[in-house]
Amino acid sequence: MATTLISGGTVVSATGRVLADVLVDGETIAAVLAPGSTLLGHDLAGSVDRVIDATGRYVIPGGVDAHTHMELPFGGTAASDTFETGTRAAAWGGTTTIIDFAVQRAGERVEDGLAAWHAKAAGRCAIDYAFHQIIGGVDDASLRAMESLVDEGITSYKLFMAYPGVFYSDDAQILRAMQKAADLGLLTMMHAENGPAIDVLAAQLVEAGRTDPYFHGIARAWQLEEEATHRAIMLADLTKAPLYVVHVSAKQAVAQLAWARDNGANVFGETCPQYLYLSLEDQLGAPGFEGAKWVCSTPLRSREEGHQHHMWQALRTNDIQMVSTDHCPFCMKGQKELGVGDFRAIPNGIGSVEHRMDLMYQGVVTGELTLERWVELTSTTPARMFGLHGRKGVIAPGADADVVVYDPNGHTSIGVGETHHMNMDHSAWEGYEIDGHVDVVLSRGLVVVDDEGYHGRPGHGAFVRRGLSQYLV
Amino acid sequence: MATTLISGGTVVSATGRVLADVLVDGETIAAVLAPGSTLLGHDLAGSVDRVIDATGRYVIPGGVDAHTHMELPFGGTAASDTFETGTRAAAWGGTTTIIDFAVQRAGERVEDGLAAWHAKAAGRCAIDYAFHQIIGGVDDASLRAMESLVDEGITSYKLFMAYPGVFYSDDAQILRAMQKAADLGLLTMMHAENGPAIDVLAAQLVEAGRTDPYFHGIARAWQLEEEATHRAIMLADLTKAPLYVVHVSAKQAVAQLAWARDNGANVFGETCPQYLYLSLEDQLGAPGFEGAKWVCSTPLRSREEGHQHHMWQALRTNDIQMVSTDHCPFCMKGQKELGVGDFRAIPNGIGSVEHRMDLMYQGVVTGELTLERWVELTSTTPARMFGLHGRKGVIAPGADADVVVYDPNGHTSIGVGETHHMNMDHSAWEGYEIDGHVDVVLSRGLVVVDDEGYHGRPGHGAFVRRGLSQYLV
Amino acid sequence: MATTLISGGTVVSATGRVLADVLVDGETIAAVLAPGSTLLGHDLAGSVDRVIDATGRYVIPGGVDAHTHMELPFGGTAASDTFETGTRAAAWGGTTTIIDFAVQRAGERVEDGLAAWHAKAAGRCAIDYAFHQIIGGVDDASLRAMESLVDEGITSYKLFMAYPGVFYSDDAQILRAMQKAADLGLLTMMHAENGPAIDVLAAQLVEAGRTDPYFHGIARAWQLEEEATHRAIMLADLTKAPLYVVHVSAKQAVAQLAWARDNGANVFGETCPQYLYLSLEDQLGAPGFEGAKWVCSTPLRSREEGHQHHMWQALRTNDIQMVSTDHCPFCMKGQKELGVGDFRAIPNGIGSVEHRMDLMYQGVVTGELTLERWVELTSTTPARMFGLHGRKGVIAPGADADVVVYDPNGHTSIGVGETHHMNMDHSAWEGYEIDGHVDVVLSRGLVVVDDEGYHGRPGHGAFVRRGLSQYLV
Amino acid sequence: MATTLISGGTVVSATGRVLADVLVDGETIAAVLAPGSTLLGHDLAGSVDRVIDATGRYVIPGGVDAHTHMELPFGGTAASDTFETGTRAAAWGGTTTIIDFAVQRAGERVEDGLAAWHAKAAGRCAIDYAFHQIIGGVDDASLRAMESLVDEGITSYKLFMAYPGVFYSDDAQILRAMQKAADLGLLTMMHAENGPAIDVLAAQLVEAGRTDPYFHGIARAWQLEEEATHRAIMLADLTKAPLYVVHVSAKQAVAQLAWARDNGANVFGETCPQYLYLSLEDQLGAPGFEGAKWVCSTPLRSREEGHQHHMWQALRTNDIQMVSTDHCPFCMKGQKELGVGDFRAIPNGIGSVEHRMDLMYQGVVTGELTLERWVELTSTTPARMFGLHGRKGVIAPGADADVVVYDPNGHTSIGVGETHHMNMDHSAWEGYEIDGHVDVVLSRGLVVVDDEGYHGRPGHGAFVRRGLSQYLV
Repeated sequence: MATTLISGGTVVSATGRVLADVLVDGETIAAVLAPGSTLLGHDLAGSVDRVIDATGRYVIPGGVDAHTHMELPFGGTAASDTFETGTRAAAWGGTTTIIDFAVQRAGERVEDGLAAWHAKAAGRCAIDYAFHQIIGGVDDASLRAMESLVDEGITSYKLFMAYPGVFYSDDAQILRAMQKAADLGLLTMMHAENGPAIDVLAAQLVEAGRTDPYFHGIARAWQLEEEATHRAIMLADLTKAPLYVVHVSAKQAVAQLAWARDNGANVFGETCPQYLYLSLEDQLGAPGFEGAKWVCSTPLRSREEGHQHHMWQALRTNDIQMVSTDHCPFCMKGQKELGVGDFRAIPNGIGSVEHRMDLMYQGVVTGELTLERWVELTSTTPARMFGLHGRKGVIAPGADADVVVYDPNGHTSIGVGETHHMNMDHSAWEGYEIDGHVDVVLSRGLVVVDDEGYHGRPGHGAFVRRGLSQYLV
Repeated sequence: MATTLISGGTVVSATGRVLADVLVDGETIAAVLAPGSTLLGHDLAGSVDRVIDATGRYVIPGGVDAHTHMELPFGGTAASDTFETGTRAAAWGGTTTIIDFAVQRAGERVEDGLAAWHAKAAGRCAIDYAFHQIIGGVDDASLRAMESLVDEGITSYKLFMAYPGVFYSDDAQILRAMQKAADLGLLTMMHAENGPAIDVLAAQLVEAGRTDPYFHGIARAWQLEEEATHRAIMLADLTKAPLYVVHVSAKQAVAQLAWARDNGANVFGETCPQYLYLSLEDQLGAPGFEGAKWVCSTPLRSREEGHQHHMWQALRTNDIQMVSTDHCPFCMKGQKELGVGDFRAIPNGIGSVEHRMDLMYQGVVTGELTLERWVELTSTTPARMFGLHGRKGVIAPGADADVVVYDPNGHTSIGVGETHHMNMDHSAWEGYEIDGHVDVVLSRGLVVVDDEGYHGRPGHGAFVRRGLSQYLV
Repeated sequence: MATTLISGGTVVSATGRVLADVLVDGETIAAVLAPGSTLLGHDLAGSVDRVIDATGRYVIPGGVDAHTHMELPFGGTAASDTFETGTRAAAWGGTTTIIDFAVQRAGERVEDGLAAWHAKAAGRCAIDYAFHQIIGGVDDASLRAMESLVDEGITSYKLFMAYPGVFYSDDAQILRAMQKAADLGLLTMMHAENGPAIDVLAAQLVEAGRTDPYFHGIARAWQLEEEATHRAIMLADLTKAPLYVVHVSAKQAVAQLAWARDNGANVFGETCPQYLYLSLEDQLGAPGFEGAKWVCSTPLRSREEGHQHHMWQALRTNDIQMVSTDHCPFCMKGQKELGVGDFRAIPNGIGSVEHRMDLMYQGVVTGELTLERWVELTSTTPARMFGLHGRKGVIAPGADADVVVYDPNGHTSIGVGETHHMNMDHSAWEGYEIDGHVDVVLSRGLVVVDDEGYHGRPGHGAFVRRGLSQYLV
Repeated sequence: MATTLISGGTVVSATGRVLADVLVDGETIAAVLAPGSTLLGHDLAGSVDRVIDATGRYVIPGGVDAHTHMELPFGGTAASDTFETGTRAAAWGGTTTIIDFAVQRAGERVEDGLAAWHAKAAGRCAIDYAFHQIIGGVDDASLRAMESLVDEGITSYKLFMAYPGVFYSDDAQILRAMQKAADLGLLTMMHAENGPAIDVLAAQLVEAGRTDPYFHGIARAWQLEEEATHRAIMLADLTKAPLYVVHVSAKQAVAQLAWARDNGANVFGETCPQYLYLSLEDQLGAPGFEGAKWVCSTPLRSREEGHQHHMWQALRTNDIQMVSTDHCPFCMKGQKELGVGDFRAIPNGIGSVEHRMDLMYQGVVTGELTLERWVELTSTTPARMFGLHGRKGVIAPGADADVVVYDPNGHTSIGVGETHHMNMDHSAWEGYEIDGHVDVVLSRGLVVVDDEGYHGRPGHGAFVRRGLSQYLV
C-alpha cells in the first residue's frame, strides 16, 4: 500500500488548529505529527511514496454529506446524477463520504428497497458511501424490517410528514416508527412539513392560476414547516426517540429546535447551502420559468423575513448542527420543465453535492463562521451524528485517510461553463465566487483530486456500515 | 530532552475517541499515531526513553481549571492553598493548568496587583499557570491599565456585581470596563450576584438571629443571581463585549444564558462541581456550624427546586460550556470559624482543585455526560475559551505534553484520611467515591504523577501567556 | 309583564362591584340604580310586583355555560341529560344560558344536524340556549353549509383533531374549514388532541392488558394535547382564523396558548372545573372501575406534574379566558360500564352543568380568583366570546334579566344524596363542599329558583341567536 | 343638588356597550337605565334639572390619567402647568381624574413633600385629583413614613432606577422599599431605566460633540430599559411586592413584563401616547433643536425597530394594561432651550394631559383597539389599578358622576392655534387630527365642558383618597 505525507499544513479540527503533518499509510491515517521530515531521528519524509506539500493551506477531514439522493425516482422522473456522476462531483468538491437514502414505499419491502440501492451504488462510487433508509410505508412488515437495519450498518431512517400518497406517514405511523426506533437505537430523520395542508394550498393556487415556480414557495408556508417541526418534536418526546430534522429552512422551525434542545432533548437539525444563500424573492421569484431551478422542499424562504440571516446565526449557536446538501439534481430540459404551467409537477431538488465545502468556506471568509465551525458543520458532526466518527470526520490515526487540502488563497468560480461535474444542464449556483479552493482530495488514501485533475475511479468508494449515533447526549 | 511513548490507550477528544499512541518529545507532543511500536518500519517504542502502557485506559488532555484563587486574601484571612500546595494538589488530580486571578482593588494599581500575583506564583508551581485579572476598582487608571493586559498574556478580566466595598463594580463601572474590553478583545468574566440586595437580606437575617451557615444560602437568593446574570447580559449586549459568567448555580440563571445564546450572543457560563452535587439542604443546612465548609458564593442551591438536575442538563445542552472549581480553600479552624455567630464572616470558598477531573468523570459513570463531553468541559473548552488551544486542551502534535492517563477501572476515595493534598483541614468532598482513577499525569512532558506517587516540583510549572479567546462565534 | 326589584345587594361585574338595586321589567333589566326604594322621589319599590332582598349577597349575571352536550350520541349510547333535565339542573346551579353543540357527521348534512338539535331542544329548556355547530365531516357540502350559520345565529363551530372515524378532521380539512371561517367571521372551536396517535397508544395499552380507566389518562398523554394545540394555532395563524381551544387540561397546552396570545393572536382557551380540582392519580386512578366516572377527554391530568395548580394560575393570567363544563353526563349503570375491560369503550364525559358556578366560587373562597374574575370567567367572557354580550353576561339595562343572587354566607353540599338534579346515577363531585349558595335565579325575568325551590318550566328557555364574537382584538 | 339625565347614548364599558340612559343626582350616578324618559311609569326626564341628549354618541366614564407631574421642579425649572391650568386642560380633553406625584427627595421628609403637594393642588383643580408618593430618598425615615400613606389615601409610591443624585434608588434601597410596600399593600411604581449606565453613555456622547436632542434617545438605549424592567421584576418577585412599571416604551421591556405575567406575577405596565405615535427618527431626530420638544424619559423609540407597532399590540394583549400621559410640560422658551448644546440639560417631559382620550380613541378608528378596550385602558383599569373603582372608571350607580359624552362623528384638530389649553408654547401633537370629539364632560355631576365651552372652576376638583389596588390577582 502506498504511503503519503501531507506536510506543512494547518490541520483544522472542530475545536482548533495545529501546524502538523499527516502521515497516510494505505487507506488510513497512520499519524499526525509535528511538522518536519523526521520523528525521533527517523526520516519519515524519505520513507513515504509521496509527499504533498500543504504549506499555507488547511488540511481538513474530507467532507461528509449526509443527505443526497442519487438516481432518486421522483415525480415521474429520476434525479439526474447516478452514483457515479454524483460521487465524482462530490470528490471534486472535497466531499469524501455521502449518505444516500434507500427508498421503501408503501406496499414495498424494506429489504428490497435497500437491495435496490446497494445495486445502484455498488462498483460505481468514487468515494465512500453509506445509506439511510426511507420508510415510505410504515406498517407491520416495515416496522419488523427496521429491526435488521442496525446489522446492515444503517442506523438512521427517514419519515416524511409531506408528500401524501408518496412518502407520507400520518401521526399514527410516525408514532409507531419512533417507538421502534427508540427501542433499536435508530435515529429518526424527519421531513417536517405538513403535507396535507400544503396540498390544499397548492391546489388552490393552481386553481387560481398561480402556477409559477414562485408559488411553490407560497404553498409551502413557513407555518407548515414550523408546525410539523413542533409535532415531530413532541412525538419524539413521547417516544423518547432521538430526532433529526432534515433541510430546515424557516427561522421559526429553528426556534422550535432551540426550544427542544434547551429542554435537554436529543433533537437536531440540518440545513443546506440553499437556505443560507438563496431566497424566495431572488431565485424562486425569477422571471418566467427560471425559478424552477430552485424548486426544492422545504422551499427557499423570504429574505425580507430574514430566514437566511437567522440560519447563519443558528449555525453559530449550534441550534442547527450540520450542513448537508439534500442533493437531488434535475435538469431543466425534460425534467424541471415537466412543471411548466403547474409548479406542483416540477421535480423537487437542487444539486449542490459538488459545492457544499466551498459554499460553507465562503461563510468563513465573510465572517459568518469560524474555520473550526466550518469543519465541524461539514464533516465532524455529520460523522458523529451518523455513527461514523473514528473513521470519518476527523484527522486522527486509525481514521480513513479521507483528507482535503484546502487553499484559502485559491479561488473557485462556480458555474456550468466553469468546473461543473454534476450531471445537470445548469447550476443552482451559477456565478457564485468562492475565495478558496479544493486543492487535493484523498479518499481512503487514494489521491482522487489534485492539481492535475481527477484521478478517482468508479468502485473505489466502498459502502460504509455505520454505528449508532455518537452525538446523542 | 526525554522522550515518552504513551501506548495502547484510547485517546479521547471533545468530538470522539481513537485507539492511538501519543509520542512525547521533550515538553511537547510530537505525534499521535496508530497503535504499535513502529511507524513506516521505524521502531518508535525502541527509540524513546520511556514507554507508558495505557492499554485499557483513557488518554486525555490534562485538565484546565480556569478558576482558582490561591492565597487569595478574603475576609481578613487568605485562601489556605499556596501556589505550591494548590498546584501540587491539582497535579494529583489530573489538572495540569490553572488560571488564577490576580487582584486589583479600588485605589490600587492593576500593574501592582499583577506583579504581586507573579511574585506569589513564580518558582512555586507544579504545573503551568496563567492569570485572569480582577478589576476591583474600575476607574480611569485601571481602565488604562487594561490596555496592557493582552501584551502580558492576560486576555480576560473579572468584575464583581457582588461584595460592595470589596470588589464591587456598579453598573456605570461595568459599562465602562466592558466598552474597554470590547475594544481590546478581552473576555469579561462576571461574578453575577446582586450584592447590594444580598447585603440587605443578610443584615436582616443576622439581625433576626438567623446566623447559621444555612442563611448564607437564603440571603443569596436565586433571584439575585438570575437578575445579575440578565443585567450582565444586557450590558454586554449594549457594549458588544463577550461575557463569561463564573460559577453559575441557579437554574434560572442558566435560562438567561440560554436565552442570550439562542439570540446569537457571545455569552458563556461556567459551573463548578459543588453546584452539581451539593445542595442547600444537605450541606449548607448541616447541623451546627458544619455547613460553613460549604459556604461559597454563589451559594449551593436547593435540591428540592431542582437546580442540580438542571445544571447537569445545562452541561449537556451546552448552555453551560465548562466546569471550573472556583477553588478557594479555607480551613475550618482559624478561618471558617471566624463566622461562628454571623454567617457573613465565614470566608467564602470551597476547595476542589484536586477533585474536579474525578468528580466530573463520575458524571460519565452515572450517565449524565458522555466521555467526550467530559474532556470538552474540563479541558478543551477551558483552553479554547481562554486562548490556550493549541498548547493546552488537546492531544495534538505541537501541543504541550500535558497528558493524563485515566483508568476507568480504577477507583478513588475522596477524603482527608485518604489521598488529600490540598492544604485544608477538611474536605468538602469527604466520602465521595469515584469509579475511576488518575493513573499518570504529565506536565509539559514531565511525569509528575504515576503509580509510584508524585514526582513534580515547585517551579516546573511555568506562566503561560494566553491569546485571545478562541471560542467566540 | 311582571316587575321585580332586587334590592340591597352587591352587584358584581367583571371589573368591580357596587352596591346597587337591579330593576327588572318583564324579561329584561330596566335599570341598575343606587340602593334605596326611591329615585328622584319616585317610589320604585312600591311600584314593582316583587322585591327580592339581596342584602349581604352578590347579584351577578346568570352563568353562561358555553360547552354542553345534552343527549349527545356517543360510543353507542347518549349523554343522559335531555335538554329538559340538563337545563333544569343548570338553573338550579345559577347557569341561565347554555350553548350546546349541534352535530354534523361525515356524510350528513349540516342543516339536518342543526334541525335535529333544534328539535331536541325546542319547548324543553328551562333556560335560554344557543348552539355551536360541530362539523364532523369537512367537505364541499359542509363548507358551503357553513355560509348559512351566521344567519342562523350560530357564529361558532367545532372541529375535532381527535376521534378518527367519528368526528376527526385531518389537517387538510381543518385548513379548509378555517379558511371558510375566517371569511365568514365564525369562531373556530377546536378539540385539540392528536387522535391518531392516541388511538395507537390506547390500542397498545389494551393489548398489554392495561384496560382500567386510569389508562385512558395515560393514552391521552399531555404531549398529544400540547402538540395539537400548537398545530391548531399555526393553522389558525396561516388562515387568520380566530381560534378557541376547548377543555384545555395540560399546562403545556396553556403555554402554547400564552405564546400565541403574547404574539397578538386571536387565540383563546377554555378549561373546565374538572381540570382545576380533579386528577389522574386521585380520580382516574380510583380502585377498580370507579375511575370511569371521571373518564373524559381531554383527560384529567397528573397532580404531581402540577397541571391543576398551573390551570388556576392561567385563569388569573387570562391565558385561559373562561370556564365551561363540557357537560356530557353518563350513568355508570348501562353507560360507563360499557367500558369494563376496555377503557376505550367508556363513554367520555363528566356532568357538571349544575355545579360550575359553585365550584368556581369556591376558587374565590380559597383565594385562587377574585370575585370579579369569577363573574368574568363564568358569565361575562363566555357571553362576549360567543356574541351574546348586551343580552347575557352583564347586569345592565336592556340585558336579559338573567340574574343570580349568590350568598357568600350560604353553604352547598354537592352529592347525589344532596341536591342533585342532573340525570346521573352518581356525581363526579360527590362530597364537594362549597362555601356559598345560589339563592335566587332569574331567567329572562322569571324567578326559576328561590328559597322555596324550583319554579321553572320546560319551554321557558328560548333559542338565542348569537352575533359574532365580541372578544376579538 | 342638580339632577341630570344623559339620554339616548351608548354606554360603553370595559366589557361591552348598551343603549342606556344615565341619571345623575348631585355628584353621583343614581341609575343606569333603559332608554326612554320613564321608568315603571315614573317620568324621569321630566323630573330632572337637565337632559343631555347623547343620541348617536358614546357615554363613557371620565378619563383617569394616572401619571401627571403638575409644577414638578426638574432640571432647574418646573413643569409649566399648574394644577389649575393642567386640570383645566385635562377636563377639556375628557379626563376627570388625575393622579399626580408628590415628591420626596433624599434628606427630605415624606410628610413635607406630601403636604407641599396638597398645598399646590388644594382649591385649584378643575377635576378630582389623587396622589402617588415619590420616594426619592429611601432611608429609615422615609420607610417609616410609608406606613402612614394608606391612611392618607395614597396607596402607591414611585421609585426611580434612573436619575442618580436626583430621585435614584439603588437596589438595596429598592429592596427595602418593596419589602415595606409588600407589608403595607402599597403598589410599587417604577421608573425602570438603568440610570448609572445611561449617565455614562450620555457623558460620552456629549464629550464626543453629540449634543443634539436626538442623542438623548441614543444614550437611553432600549437595553437599559429592558434591563431595569427585568431587575425590578426580580426584586418584586423576591419581596412579593406587586409592581407597576411606568411609561414603558421598548418592545423588549414589554417582553419582560409578558414573561413575568405569564408566570402569574402581579406585574403591570403603563405606556403613554407618545410611545404609540412618535419616534426617535421622526421627532427626536427633527432638525436643529426642534427635537427637544419630545425629550422625555423613557425616550421615544426607533420606528425602524418597530417599538410603536409592538406597543399597540401589547395594549391588545394586555401585556400593557393602561395608558397614562406622564404629562410633564415644559415650554421651549426658557425651559427646553436650557439644553441647547447639551441634551442632558433639556428638561424631560411632554405635555399630553389634554389629548390622551382623543389620541387613544384614534386607535379605535384605525382598528388598533376596540371601543371597549379604549375605555378599559384610559379609565376603568387606571381606576382599578389605583384603588378608585366604584368611584371612578365606571358608569354605575353610586359612582362619581364623572362622565364623558364622546362623539364618533365629531372631529378634533390638535395644535396651539386650535384648542390648546395646556400652559405650553407648543404642542407635542401639533397637527394631529382626531376622528372624534369630546362633547360633554361632567365632573362629579357638574358639567365642566359642553358645546358652549368650559364651565369648570378651580376648586371644584377634590382630593380623592384611594383604596388599595383592585387589580391584583
